Amino acid sequence: MDTLPYDPSRLAARAAEIVATTRELSALGWTPATSSNFSMRLDDTHAAITVSGRDKGRLTEADIMVVDFAGKPVATSHRPSAETLLHTQLYARYPQVGCVLHTHSRNQTVASRLFARQGHVRLEGYELLKAFAGNQTHETAVDVKVFPNTQDMPSLAADVEKLLDAGPCWGYLIDGHGLYAWGKDMAEARRHLEAFDFLLACELDLRRLTP
Amino acid sequence: MDTLPYDPSRLAARAAEIVATTRELSALGWTPATSSNFSMRLDDTHAAITVSGRDKGRLTEADIMVVDFAGKPVATSHRPSAETLLHTQLYARYPQVGCVLHTHSRNQTVASRLFARQGHVRLEGYELLKAFAGNQTHETAVDVKVFPNTQDMPSLAADVEKLLDAGPCWGYLIDGHGLYAWGKDMAEARRHLEAFDFLLACELDLRRLTP
Amino acid sequence: MDTLPYDPSRLAARAAEIVATTRELSALGWTPATSSNFSMRLDDTHAAITVSGRDKGRLTEADIMVVDFAGKPVATSHRPSAETLLHTQLYARYPQVGCVLHTHSRNQTVASRLFARQGHVRLEGYELLKAFAGNQTHETAVDVKVFPNTQDMPSLAADVEKLLDAGPCWGYLIDGHGLYAWGKDMAEARRHLEAFDFLLACELDLRRLTP
Amino acid sequence: MDTLPYDPSRLAARAAEIVATTRELSALGWTPATSSNFSMRLDDTHAAITVSGRDKGRLTEADIMVVDFAGKPVATSHRPSAETLLHTQLYARYPQVGCVLHTHSRNQTVASRLFARQGHVRLEGYELLKAFAGNQTHETAVDVKVFPNTQDMPSLAADVEKLLDAGPCWGYLIDGHGLYAWGKDMAEARRHLEAFDFLLACELDLRRLTP
Repeated sequence: MDTLPYDPSRLAARAAEIVATTRELSALGWTPATSSNFSMRLDDTHAAITVSGRDKGRLTEADIMVVDFAGKPVATSHRPSAETLLHTQLYARYPQVGCVLHTHSRNQTVASRLFARQGHVRLEGYELLKAFAGNQTHETAVDVKVFPNTQDMPSLAADVEKLLDAGPCWGYLIDGHGLYAWGKDMAEARRHLEAFDFLLACELDLRRLTP
Repeated sequence: MDTLPYDPSRLAARAAEIVATTRELSALGWTPATSSNFSMRLDDTHAAITVSGRDKGRLTEADIMVVDFAGKPVATSHRPSAETLLHTQLYARYPQVGCVLHTHSRNQTVASRLFARQGHVRLEGYELLKAFAGNQTHETAVDVKVFPNTQDMPSLAADVEKLLDAGPCWGYLIDGHGLYAWGKDMAEARRHLEAFDFLLACELDLRRLTP
Repeated sequence: MDTLPYDPSRLAARAAEIVATTRELSALGWTPATSSNFSMRLDDTHAAITVSGRDKGRLTEADIMVVDFAGKPVATSHRPSAETLLHTQLYARYPQVGCVLHTHSRNQTVASRLFARQGHVRLEGYELLKAFAGNQTHETAVDVKVFPNTQDMPSLAADVEKLLDAGPCWGYLIDGHGLYAWGKDMAEARRHLEAFDFLLACELDLRRLTP
Repeated sequence: MDTLPYDPSRLAARAAEIVATTRELSALGWTPATSSNFSMRLDDTHAAITVSGRDKGRLTEADIMVVDFAGKPVATSHRPSAETLLHTQLYARYPQVGCVLHTHSRNQTVASRLFARQGHVRLEGYELLKAFAGNQTHETAVDVKVFPNTQDMPSLAADVEKLLDAGPCWGYLIDGHGLYAWGKDMAEARRHLEAFDFLLACELDLRRLTP
């Protein structure tokens, strides 16, 4: 039996974390119609990620596969999601990133459509801005970038690199699609994801209420 | 004891699948007031379908009956739903259809009312369009037909046949009523159902937000 | 030990039904802040009803008391809700009524405020109108009466009697307050309650969407 | 081993109550991204309060710490939330206050933004106004104060003192932030919290529906 190029016990631990979180996010309705994907760093060259096309509310550890940071499958016949590269580019660029979460909630999708032309959503005046790692005050503004949607992942990944070059960032939207958020570990990535979703929901409500 | 014209062990398996899914959809509020019905193909001439008028949140396998593709009860004294014909016409026409799901969510009902005059809802620009079997890109549009409601099922079924003649289709709306969606098996039918509901919800939100 | 004027085993059975339903409706958010009350007929002169002021999400069978049809406590030191008379007038008037459910969902409360001046909400064009006992078609309209709110229960009960004199009725709203719905048993009362709530929600959505 | 300045068995009982309620409120989505904090009185000089920054949906009794009424940690190395003073000022001022709940629901946050300029939200014409301790009728109005948000807690606490000087009060909002509500015990504080959230939600809906 060949030696695996990653630590299988670490994979088991990360897979368990991904499955638990994925089922909780699915129960919120954030992964409709088998959409969304979730990953965690294994080591300096590998990540664990959900297999494409599985029902996220029924995910098991058998639905988690290993990829390298070019997004290629490692020691598996599973097919990774087309969007795997959007996960691995973050692990490759930032040694401190340990988890990437991509969801399709209704608030995320609607906000992405509504603000696509403007190119970003400005979040300002909310206490919950303090949920983003490094922010100490609500007296700030966060602009969430909205990228045009495309099936050309290398092109989208190149656009994301430019966004990351521009300064600190905890996530972004893709038009008609959903949200990417990340953090040093599952807890931080999820805190960022929840903060983005909540604040986008508030922005949508305020637009409905202040014509 | 007479021989049943269908395989009872297959019925038991399909009934278990229908009960599990129905309870989950009921928990989402998609089957208000005992509405909605759900079916799966048994073989070339029979389908298993929910008995009319049962509380979908409390469904058990005793609430599943067998019908032929004319919608008539088979080896049972249960009464099928008036809408059984809308299920069986799909099994009769398409050998590859294995499951038909009909729900009454608020988004489905409101969208059907709002777009009834126009006759369809256009879904365009969403990544989740890739959830419909055969679609490989978000750069497409899906028009969801909205039929006028009627208690005359043969007449409605004839209108549905014309829709199916016109090209590939994964579901339709009935005005003031709800959604029909189908697929090769429970997983695909449910993926289509979830995609329709999500995208209709997004369309309603966008209409609220862009006056 | 005195003989109770009602059958205690029937009370135990009805109390169990009330507790199970109440907890489910509470989980939907329809009983905020200990509001709402629920009852079932015991016999020709007694009903079982929830004690006032209990958290409906934590209800137990000890929170169910017996009242006569004048709304007076029977063989108990518990205090009934001020609105008990609105339950018992239905049992007294209609021998076939077995269950009365009163909830405070957001849709019910908002619809009652919005349509208070008009005095009713018209529900028309919905398949779910067939959920009301006796309706065979969606081609009908149901006007849900909205009464002004008052703390004077005998006066409100007298207004309700006039409504009931006017024809078949499955429920009514009270302005800024909530919904009363009833039926021959728990299943029918709950089907009516769910149908009212769903259809009121649709009406509110359609008003938001069609300015 | 030193003697603790509070009764540890009382702490255990209060911590269990806080954990149970916090998990329920988290399941409602009222504590996004590790926000919100919850406390109960221990005695005349101490309160139990949630440790800052924990995921409220996964809270355990180890996440509850003790503070004095100046908001300082007692016999613990845990860091209390920056907002601890807003809890303890209520215990210090009112011997009858036994529980303070602070949440960040979407309705609370959106209402606080929308009514910040006006400085309060008027709640009027709702039966549920009777949920506030001491209110016997719906024929009253409650003005919920909206304070500007600040990271300067002593300054905010001083503003709250002025509000409390002005008359009976069950809670207040902070702009872009959330709601504080309190009561004699957990049940009353939660009843007040649920009533505020429900009535704010109704006010937002009515604004959407009556242009």
